Amino acid sequence: MARQVATNVTWHEGSVTRSEREKALDQKGATLWMTGLSGSGKSTIAVALEQVLIQRGKGAYRLDGDNVRHGLNKNLGFSAEDRTENIRRIGEVAKLFTDAGILTITSFISPYRADRDTVRALHAEAELPFLEVYVDAPLDVAESRDPKGLYKKARAGEIKGFTGIDDPFEAPESAEIHLRTDQLSVAESVQTMLDALESRGLLGG
Amino acid sequence: MARQVATNVTWHEGSVTRSEREKALDQKGATLWMTGLSGSGKSTIAVALEQVLIQRGKGAYRLDGDNVRHGLNKNLGFSAEDRTENIRRIGEVAKLFTDAGILTITSFISPYRADRDTVRALHAEAELPFLEVYVDAPLDVAESRDPKGLYKKARAGEIKGFTGIDDPFEAPESAEIHLRTDQLSVAESVQTMLDALESRGLLGG
Repeated sequence: MARQVATNVTWHEGSVTRSEREKALDQKGATLWMTGLSGSGKSTIAVALEQVLIQRGKGAYRLDGDNVRHGLNKNLGFSAEDRTENIRRIGEVAKLFTDAGILTITSFISPYRADRDTVRALHAEAELPFLEVYVDAPLDVAESRDPKGLYKKARAGEIKGFTGIDDPFEAPESAEIHLRTDQLSVAESVQTMLDALESRGLLGG
Repeated sequence: MARQVATNVTWHEGSVTRSEREKALDQKGATLWMTGLSGSGKSTIAVALEQVLIQRGKGAYRLDGDNVRHGLNKNLGFSAEDRTENIRRIGEVAKLFTDAGILTITSFISPYRADRDTVRALHAEAELPFLEVYVDAPLDVAESRDPKGLYKKARAGEIKGFTGIDDPFEAPESAEIHLRTDQLSVAESVQTMLDALESRGLLGG
């Protein structure tokens, strides 16, 4: 009854090592954790960076509200507990992607320092590169952009606990990358991130 | 005060498309969802397949108890509700990896048909390849292997709700790949999976 399958498949004992994975993909994984106010430019820069990396043949992936909030985290609300769990899960998934050798770009307000530090610690334990990217625009600039009309609703009291209005944004104190998006163009912000990856040897050959 | 950054970075409007991603990686993503009893051979085959794919320069990643149960899903127990949530989250993460263009191998007992069908539907909605892999060994064979001594504990009543003993394994009815691991060697099982990927055009150039 046994099905005969011709094979010359061979492998070694144990799991794939990170260096084998990096060799296969000719790059290293890293998490680029973008944090900043709504309207600071996170998504715009994240989309542009992902495109540039993919154009260069790199394995890159962006985790954002569209693919996480409606999927993995669709059973979470906006209570303090759920917000922390939201960031924890995103951090764990980013860690898996980075372990897989992917340049992983996350784009979430992630306003609380403790939550971001938890994600940083997760990566540090596993010796995986983690770069916090502070996407920094003054509140008045971010609010004047208001791409989704959310500040207007928050000012009108229609949204409660909105970061920058009635909930704090705890700015990073030692972000690896600091983008003043009121002063830098999107292209300049992307280039700054590419330079940071390059200088750390994270773009491979 | 503006920092000057020389850049010739360019990109197009909108997000990276799946075909751009596939071109960058020279492969397509797919989820290989391995399901079967404890001791059926899931992990052994998953590890070997991952190694062979990486040796061939493919982007591949394995999600298993080691990197998921102690990370993303560490806040889940073994209640019926938590088991379903465990599989749901793994399914969502596999979907993200597959969307990123990675050959994604999951290795979990995942005993309930409804949970596996939920994951299948998630992939179908997004038009992402999903291959259910039934890792099929008769209970007596799996129990005789008992790599972690779990069947012994379950028979002694020290573990409750153990799949195959006092909790059902709902066998797949239309798995894309059926591996009779009491009849196939590990190499043959891996080759069968490679053939399935190849025949679907999922291994690229």
